[in-house]
Amino acid sequence: MLYRKKIKVKTERGVSYVELTRAIEKVIEESGVKDGICNIALKATTAGLLINEHDLLLLKDFERFFKELIKENRLYAHPDNAFSHLRASLLKNEITLPIENGKLVLGTWQSILLFEFDIRDREREIVVTIIGEGEKE
Amino acid sequence: MLYRKKIKVKTERGVSYVELTRAIEKVIEESGVKDGICNIALKATTAGLLINEHDLLLLKDFERFFKELIKENRLYAHPDNAFSHLRASLLKNEITLPIENGKLVLGTWQSILLFEFDIRDREREIVVTIIGEGEKE
Amino acid sequence: MLYRKKIKVKTERGVSYVELTRAIEKVIEESGVKDGICNIALKATTAGLLINEHDLLLLKDFERFFKELIKENRLYAHPDNAFSHLRASLLKNEITLPIENGKLVLGTWQSILLFEFDIRDREREIVVTIIGEGEKE
Repeated sequence: MLYRKKIKVKTERGVSYVELTRAIEKVIEESGVKDGICNIALKATTAGLLINEHDLLLLKDFERFFKELIKENRLYAHPDNAFSHLRASLLKNEITLPIENGKLVLGTWQSILLFEFDIRDREREIVVTIIGEGEKE
Repeated sequence: MLYRKKIKVKTERGVSYVELTRAIEKVIEESGVKDGICNIALKATTAGLLINEHDLLLLKDFERFFKELIKENRLYAHPDNAFSHLRASLLKNEITLPIENGKLVLGTWQSILLFEFDIRDREREIVVTIIGEGEKE
Repeated sequence: MLYRKKIKVKTERGVSYVELTRAIEKVIEESGVKDGICNIALKATTAGLLINEHDLLLLKDFERFFKELIKENRLYAHPDNAFSHLRASLLKNEITLPIENGKLVLGTWQSILLFEFDIRDREREIVVTIIGEGEKE
């Protein structure tokens, strides 16, 4: 059984973030899949996915880490937003997670986060694909 | 066909590592799946998965790289173990690999490694989900 | 339905790159799968996969980033190519992407790139596994 849904989220110019966990869980509930996997693909080259703790102070540390490691104020060959692409490459474009008993399997402190690194506000599309065994079958 | 197993491993406070390849191979053998994919999900925000060479000297180089890039002795906003979260973000929470003829497909030098970055010894849970075609069907 | 194909590509000693998008799209077309997922696994510990923009200037920025972050001219414990392994760990060994209406789902600027970091020219093997629902069923 395969179920697919596309999610759109508005983001603010980077570095900013949006939590996606609840939106992904809703897609799993809609799918009726009880056991399987959930693939989450972000159609972006200047934003990225990260599974980590949704703690405001920790996310400040992440922001500082990205900004220090890949600086804005230096010369890049690619115009405008090379640093946005480089920062995005530190994270993931796609994540595949288990589904068990109709629920996304995540650790206690794991949240699915989307980091925006671009220099403009954006609308991002996330393609969620669920493959598994469901009660509707 | 879907088969799932959870693996628990004890880890030492970071930076330390555990090799998981053989444990994953055993789950695939148990599953009876001949051709498919194997999703490996680590329920952690201060540990990560890496596929690379299991060479003691190389793993020393990795340890130094993580420690130099993300230092312990500086101020972080998140208390105690912010650097553990940041180091974990360099690696993966989840990996999906092919299964062919009942075997995990890995390159000659590829091993599945779990790096522990937390400041305490931990027990980590890995959720293995196998989807594919097996001889039991 | 499961379809698998192995792709071999010749690479030049690093840092160099090869675009894989068209080769992966061809495998999907051959498979006849209309909706599903496509797992791409690279059997390498000194090369990596990245989904980002195929722009020559941006790829120069990526090259400089890898070379600055992980330098060649310093002492490593692992002989010869430790820096190749470390650089590869910044990217992915495996990627799983959605297939919709028989096409790989990618954003406008997303290309699948293989970065070679080794100190010799290599031939790399990529294992493509497609799982989904097709019209041949």
